[in-house]
Amino acid sequence: MTDRGGGGPSAYPEAMFERRLARLRAAMAQADVETTLLSVGADLPWLIGYEAMALERLTMLVVSGDCQPKLVIPAFEVPRVVDRGDLFSVVAWGETENPVSVIADLVGPAGRVAIGDHTWSRFLVALQDAMPSARWLTAGQLTSPLRAVKEPEEIERLQFAASGVDRVAAALQGGEIPLIGRTEADVSAEISRRILAEGHAAVNFAIVASGANAASPHHHASDKVIEPGEVVLCDFGGKTAEADGRPGYCSDITRCMHTGEPSAEFAEAYEALRQAQGDAVVAATVGNEAQAVDAVARDRLAQADLDQWFLHRLGHGIGVEEHEDPYLVEGNAEPLVAGNAFSIEPGFYVADRWGARIEDIVVATEDGPLALNTADHHLAIVEA
Amino acid sequence: MTDRGGGGPSAYPEAMFERRLARLRAAMAQADVETTLLSVGADLPWLIGYEAMALERLTMLVVSGDCQPKLVIPAFEVPRVVDRGDLFSVVAWGETENPVSVIADLVGPAGRVAIGDHTWSRFLVALQDAMPSARWLTAGQLTSPLRAVKEPEEIERLQFAASGVDRVAAALQGGEIPLIGRTEADVSAEISRRILAEGHAAVNFAIVASGANAASPHHHASDKVIEPGEVVLCDFGGKTAEADGRPGYCSDITRCMHTGEPSAEFAEAYEALRQAQGDAVVAATVGNEAQAVDAVARDRLAQADLDQWFLHRLGHGIGVEEHEDPYLVEGNAEPLVAGNAFSIEPGFYVADRWGARIEDIVVATEDGPLALNTADHHLAIVEA
Repeated sequence: MTDRGGGGPSAYPEAMFERRLARLRAAMAQADVETTLLSVGADLPWLIGYEAMALERLTMLVVSGDCQPKLVIPAFEVPRVVDRGDLFSVVAWGETENPVSVIADLVGPAGRVAIGDHTWSRFLVALQDAMPSARWLTAGQLTSPLRAVKEPEEIERLQFAASGVDRVAAALQGGEIPLIGRTEADVSAEISRRILAEGHAAVNFAIVASGANAASPHHHASDKVIEPGEVVLCDFGGKTAEADGRPGYCSDITRCMHTGEPSAEFAEAYEALRQAQGDAVVAATVGNEAQAVDAVARDRLAQADLDQWFLHRLGHGIGVEEHEDPYLVEGNAEPLVAGNAFSIEPGFYVADRWGARIEDIVVATEDGPLALNTADHHLAIVEA
Repeated sequence: MTDRGGGGPSAYPEAMFERRLARLRAAMAQADVETTLLSVGADLPWLIGYEAMALERLTMLVVSGDCQPKLVIPAFEVPRVVDRGDLFSVVAWGETENPVSVIADLVGPAGRVAIGDHTWSRFLVALQDAMPSARWLTAGQLTSPLRAVKEPEEIERLQFAASGVDRVAAALQGGEIPLIGRTEADVSAEISRRILAEGHAAVNFAIVASGANAASPHHHASDKVIEPGEVVLCDFGGKTAEADGRPGYCSDITRCMHTGEPSAEFAEAYEALRQAQGDAVVAATVGNEAQAVDAVARDRLAQADLDQWFLHRLGHGIGVEEHEDPYLVEGNAEPLVAGNAFSIEPGFYVADRWGARIEDIVVATEDGPLALNTADHHLAIVEA
């Protein structure tokens, strides 16, 4: 692959990871946390560029005080670890050893310990037994505020991911990906193939919901054949490939097509949704509360009597993880800051009838909201 | 799909899930556990046929005393839940509610609580804060021994999965999937496509390791081009599609090809490995200790002076999850019981030179070991 998503430097970004580690240590000091333990999930690749395998053999980074972090991993996974200079050292455990004991020994007498959010509970329960003096909190309390503020290089990666799925959306809207007469699952498989062809390493989801299926926000894709005269809601995204030691970043977009002309009622509802989505994007400015942006979309939908069908929050943050801080939801009074990246995705869902959603990834910047997705927002009318 | 993996009944298997729930309750009573909480992971689909989405919105089954289990899920995921009669009831939580409080209220004053092994630590930490009187253990202590003994229907599903990847292995061995001149990643992608075409819903991994890359047991697949005169180790598996409300089951197989004639040294080492693998399969009888089967392979490799390069355990259980009990590893003195299904996969890994592994899924039965994979075990010589 030659396009690495913005033409960033190709050397291993040791300085970037050192900066992140320093920020984590500062957050730990402020929260009076002595030790942070990270395993599976997005914190680890964000922090040091290494992703733990989600298996029963434990991989865990131990960040304690001012010591060099230790990556505790199964001995035969050592060849997977790229040499990271002084960033961390590797502690290999053998096939008949207990990695929980290895970690407890490394930590020593434990005080406040932060555990990675996605760490399997079986390991947390075992660590709690092995470190009875520890008091536990979630590492996300430390890492989420850091990860939520994207660096310029990260926004380039998100833009690369967004442009890829924009092209897939355009292929749906332009009829290059046929809909009528195919099953939702078949269309979903084609979307998945195209996401991978656009420089993604993984497809996170490729929802295709037609007709009444569009009324379920988390419908995936079924054997239902797409008929003429239906809405076809497509919500898809993935994660770009790791590149030059940097982790991949996520994409997420939703667009709606209609097979043939829609009814006047649906067209009118969709148009209100399109305006609500656009108004919310404009409202996503630095300093505005996350919940206030949600309220903008909800109020606009209320004018069209559609707010009762808007069943979910307006959006979620996005980065190395598909869903992360900040969440645009009632109750989140945190003001947006420059570098926040999040989805804006209002929808309406009328059971047994139809549904629609429009979604872009947007970055809050000092110059105002920057929408990374630019695929057309109108209801695309596609014929057979 | 017409072949559901053995021609089992097509009706929803309510009796099967009721039986499993009764077995879980009995295990809870025996271990003095009042409540079991299950979220993401394989326990939930195994127990009630529902798989939680691995997202920040919590889904959790609450099994307490003799009450009907409650599935606590995000309100707008309710349409994903198929009606299961009286098996469990659904408790929906709204977008601005706290699901942890909902669960703590359902549980009430808590005693011993079992938490699903793969539940995210962020939820366990929050539950521990909300339920200060609870004493925690892992649900795997209850469910793993149950899941490790497969019912006949489950063995049919595993056979269906194994036969699918056997055909992919045969395509590699027969040269139908070309190797020389292609990248490992390209071959891996073709293996993945074929696994899906064989009735799998997901590919869990498709390792292609050629030449010196085969010396890393968890090497995945790189941009390295496969050359003449190399070993090509392919280890792949996935999970079959859900069918009729039943969860999918996993496959896992390893075979080695050689591009052109191998050296006498490698051919000899491979032959010792093939005999070690075959001897271990024969030793996988009911009543034999798990670690004794591991020792059979290790001793046989020692005769060829290869045991120092056998870096990992002999095998892992398999079922609704890729890796589960029983583990065939030194230190596991549990005797095999009829219905145990597991991999037998010895290997040798000589850094910077080469490696090899042979893997089958085997079921311990009263009539002796039953190997579900039957693809040829010899080193397949493939030409360009």
